[in-house]
Amino acid sequence: LTRILTVELGARSYPIHIGAGLLSGLGEKIRKQVTGRRVLVVTNPTVKKLYGAVADRSLAAAGLDLYWAEIPDGEEHKTLAVAARLYDLAFDAGLDRDCPVVALGGGVVGDITGFVAATYLRGVPFVQVPTTLLAQVDSSVGGKVAVNHPRGKNIIGAFYQPRLVVADTDTLLTLPEREIRAGIGEIIKYGVIADAEFFAWLENNLERLSAGNPETLAYAVEISCRIKAAVVAADETEQGHRQILNYGHTIGHAIESLTDYREYLHGEAISIGMVAAARLAVRLGMLDETAQGRIEHLVQRAGLPTALPPGLDFEAVLASLQRDKKARAGRITFILPEAVGRVRICPDIASSVLRPLFPPVTVP
Amino acid sequence: LTRILTVELGARSYPIHIGAGLLSGLGEKIRKQVTGRRVLVVTNPTVKKLYGAVADRSLAAAGLDLYWAEIPDGEEHKTLAVAARLYDLAFDAGLDRDCPVVALGGGVVGDITGFVAATYLRGVPFVQVPTTLLAQVDSSVGGKVAVNHPRGKNIIGAFYQPRLVVADTDTLLTLPEREIRAGIGEIIKYGVIADAEFFAWLENNLERLSAGNPETLAYAVEISCRIKAAVVAADETEQGHRQILNYGHTIGHAIESLTDYREYLHGEAISIGMVAAARLAVRLGMLDETAQGRIEHLVQRAGLPTALPPGLDFEAVLASLQRDKKARAGRITFILPEAVGRVRICPDIASSVLRPLFPPVTVP
Repeated sequence: LTRILTVELGARSYPIHIGAGLLSGLGEKIRKQVTGRRVLVVTNPTVKKLYGAVADRSLAAAGLDLYWAEIPDGEEHKTLAVAARLYDLAFDAGLDRDCPVVALGGGVVGDITGFVAATYLRGVPFVQVPTTLLAQVDSSVGGKVAVNHPRGKNIIGAFYQPRLVVADTDTLLTLPEREIRAGIGEIIKYGVIADAEFFAWLENNLERLSAGNPETLAYAVEISCRIKAAVVAADETEQGHRQILNYGHTIGHAIESLTDYREYLHGEAISIGMVAAARLAVRLGMLDETAQGRIEHLVQRAGLPTALPPGLDFEAVLASLQRDKKARAGRITFILPEAVGRVRICPDIASSVLRPLFPPVTVP
Repeated sequence: LTRILTVELGARSYPIHIGAGLLSGLGEKIRKQVTGRRVLVVTNPTVKKLYGAVADRSLAAAGLDLYWAEIPDGEEHKTLAVAARLYDLAFDAGLDRDCPVVALGGGVVGDITGFVAATYLRGVPFVQVPTTLLAQVDSSVGGKVAVNHPRGKNIIGAFYQPRLVVADTDTLLTLPEREIRAGIGEIIKYGVIADAEFFAWLENNLERLSAGNPETLAYAVEISCRIKAAVVAADETEQGHRQILNYGHTIGHAIESLTDYREYLHGEAISIGMVAAARLAVRLGMLDETAQGRIEHLVQRAGLPTALPPGLDFEAVLASLQRDKKARAGRITFILPEAVGRVRICPDIASSVLRPLFPPVTVP
């Protein structure tokens, strides 16, 4: 069963294919979307070992000339320098404006490959083939592409939509448990921001989801993509409404930044952020405690962290929040739940309201 | 007299202001277009010396915080490495998504600054303040931004429209004569591709234009921008019609590339290309010799080169044409005039037709 959704963006609309075993039909799907025959596939060594052969066969069967580019694994390689090497490879492979660049991997591969696709020859067709749960439910959809800069994460980037997203849920079967959990963090987010029914479904199906049941995973990926697609269609370049996708991300990004992106996976950091934002919403009288309890409990049951790292310095967090690229004129924006399934964008949250979230460190 | 045109691109529409002395009102115009108060102005040492003080005063009077960035002059500095330094400066100046980046200078400054504006924080407001004739009539309008890569010119870039273009024609008074001539090359192009009446006006007013008569220059800038704006509005990302702007550029780019961008200014190289394309059109029976003669004569009267560099090797030219980023599947596209004021996009020009344009080198 292949599920096909569409991200509705006028001339830039594109399909998301979700299903088991889709990698073996990747070549055909690419052929239907683009006219160029030369294809640069960017991946990392781990993913190449697992899925290189099937991608090779599939693209060859579709009559496409495949050129591989491997980038090292890890956020620290998502740099302009690595992008510069990818431009070289695209150029040497003779890619022209009709030839696609394909990201086969997780968020790092998708982000940097998308940046290269957005900027090589002022933009070539881009295909996302996410192989992690986080990438399938979040980063592969919506067109946010970027590389990091010494001054900050994702500082250099663009909004550049893919032509096609192919999420083969079989690739999730090889993921470490911790990565499945982290992906579930983002999935819970969708329930909180937009879909109370989905949230309740997650409460009822969490164990099957965590255990990697293929049909359960595929359903969760589909609903997550459906919610994200609707939000992106309404506000492609994050002028307003799209900010609701950042629920949990205000504190989440600060935690990632202050721990140098080493301690927490993204889905873990935003889990802490979601719980903190829910508590903040209760404190501000926007959310009742029952709803907050349900959010916190589901995060906890998913095996995700709910508490701020001990000893996190409030001033450091505040400084990090104000440096965030989503801050405007130093104002901090929080996305706060009003109920399970509904959030509000709250700009200009005062630091005095935040302070109680960060209890002072007690020196023994 | 300020002339104001609009590039009609829906939500991305923007005005072009053309007139004498506009720099002194730059701050006010920026204030009207953007909400951010911090402004990064990118320029080069020559332009800074000439116009730094007036820009300083104008932005301060409008209540804007101005941060200067100087990049060295010359195409060879339009690199990712220089862009990386500009990201640093933007970050350190505390620019957020509402704060504009301003290009004050010629094509090199405009291209790299636009690339940084397009990619910093996934895009911030961009303002073009072109100070050369070529930049005022061509590169500052239409949203093509880029940096060079060791493998080729403008290989890395985007289509990213400015919010505002301010062309102060007083800045043309300080230009070297050779740069005025090169700009006139692009101006002649507009007459050939789209406006027979403008071409005739150029035939009648060339001397006044070349001598730098302010009112004549302002009119030529206005009509050129008007033509370019209409073409860009019809085909923003060069899927088809916009290619007519590349008249003279097929051969022009090859000449620039084969001479390492050192021998010819851009406007000179495309002048050779325009004459070559007109001759090719005659050879193919598309253009009568009278029209070709008018084109060639006007280019010559403007003091621009009309002949291919002696000893240019045909195979080298052909290889360069096929590597061009506008080539698709190795096919070479020429823009050929059918009359003064009308061109046709001709894909798939055979190399056998081109060969007579490049007479074999005779060894004495």
